[in-house]
Amino acid sequence: MARLRLHNFTLSLDGFAAGPNQCVEQPLGENGLLLHDWIFQTASFQSTLGENGGNTGRNDDLFRARTENVGATIMGRHMFGPIRGPWPDESWRGWWGEAPPFGHDVFVLTHHRRSDLVMANGTTFHFVEAEPYQVFAQAAAAADGRDVVLGGGPSTVRQFLAAGLIDDVHLVIAPVVLASGERLFDQPLSILSGYSCTPLSCDNGVAHAQLTRKDAL
Amino acid sequence: MARLRLHNFTLSLDGFAAGPNQCVEQPLGENGLLLHDWIFQTASFQSTLGENGGNTGRNDDLFRARTENVGATIMGRHMFGPIRGPWPDESWRGWWGEAPPFGHDVFVLTHHRRSDLVMANGTTFHFVEAEPYQVFAQAAAAADGRDVVLGGGPSTVRQFLAAGLIDDVHLVIAPVVLASGERLFDQPLSILSGYSCTPLSCDNGVAHAQLTRKDAL
Repeated sequence: MARLRLHNFTLSLDGFAAGPNQCVEQPLGENGLLLHDWIFQTASFQSTLGENGGNTGRNDDLFRARTENVGATIMGRHMFGPIRGPWPDESWRGWWGEAPPFGHDVFVLTHHRRSDLVMANGTTFHFVEAEPYQVFAQAAAAADGRDVVLGGGPSTVRQFLAAGLIDDVHLVIAPVVLASGERLFDQPLSILSGYSCTPLSCDNGVAHAQLTRKDAL
Repeated sequence: MARLRLHNFTLSLDGFAAGPNQCVEQPLGENGLLLHDWIFQTASFQSTLGENGGNTGRNDDLFRARTENVGATIMGRHMFGPIRGPWPDESWRGWWGEAPPFGHDVFVLTHHRRSDLVMANGTTFHFVEAEPYQVFAQAAAAADGRDVVLGGGPSTVRQFLAAGLIDDVHLVIAPVVLASGERLFDQPLSILSGYSCTPLSCDNGVAHAQLTRKDAL
């Protein structure tokens, strides 16, 4: 049975997953990139840029874990691109260029139909409008025995959490205060009481927590 | 100039400083005590119970720091006791018995008048209704050159934060999900963008962050 996993989802100390005023130039809102500074400093991230520097250690291990035994990805539309409303044409092909790093099927949630988009490197984007459990079923079938990663953003994560579909939740708290923006936990989520939390551990200034569904233990 | 300091203020991973359904038997709400488990495990806390066990290390150091160079305390009424509305009589004398651990003047915020309450050990409770800056001025005068600690709870902390009065904020993230309850950051607090945050550090499963006003550096 495929697990649905959330990795490296980073919150500010005051609970925001993105800053205010998200736009094309600032997809994560004002100061939102600061949340991910810990990722940019890892060796695994820097190697994707063809560089040899960066930290190894727990941050690097956990950042890299997002790709292990994963056969499909689900993401909200804002993770795919900045366009809102109907697609004006098919020219937007994602933030990642012609060879996206996924190498598997990616299910993009949208209310607006669009044909499958086959890219290099084994990545195909599917544009789907369906309930979370239906999207997960499609992604799990595509993953062919491996797990499914949920890519974000915050509202997509909330929907899949509320639907009880996420098995493993890796949250990161960054030493940043955003003061406003988009929260992950904007409403009490009673389903969270069904999760147990590991002790927090820190590396290079950020704290990691991993939540697992109690019924899945 | 006295500083106003907040110490050991603990949040769940999902941002709650107390659980739901606070009452006399559960002043911190359902599961709220879990937030403070890290405190109960410190050597400094256990010594207040006359015991010799407990952890030393960063948690213990930071827990103990709340008493260093402190000459007065401010707290919300719920921190003083469970009574709401007018005082029925003067029989409630705080959660701490006849010899409270403060050893200095404690200013309790309340809309209901009550005479000063002089206890053993040099503690006097003053019951005050005034704007945050006025209460801080009174407490700073009483502290006589030392600092003032803000004791909580969440709504009191929010008021003093919003008023721009807190110089040092020590927050702790505990490996607990409460799913609902009372938040510290229930509304965007623009004043937070005036604070800088230290890198997070962990000890025994909790993460510590210290915020300092940039204009105070």
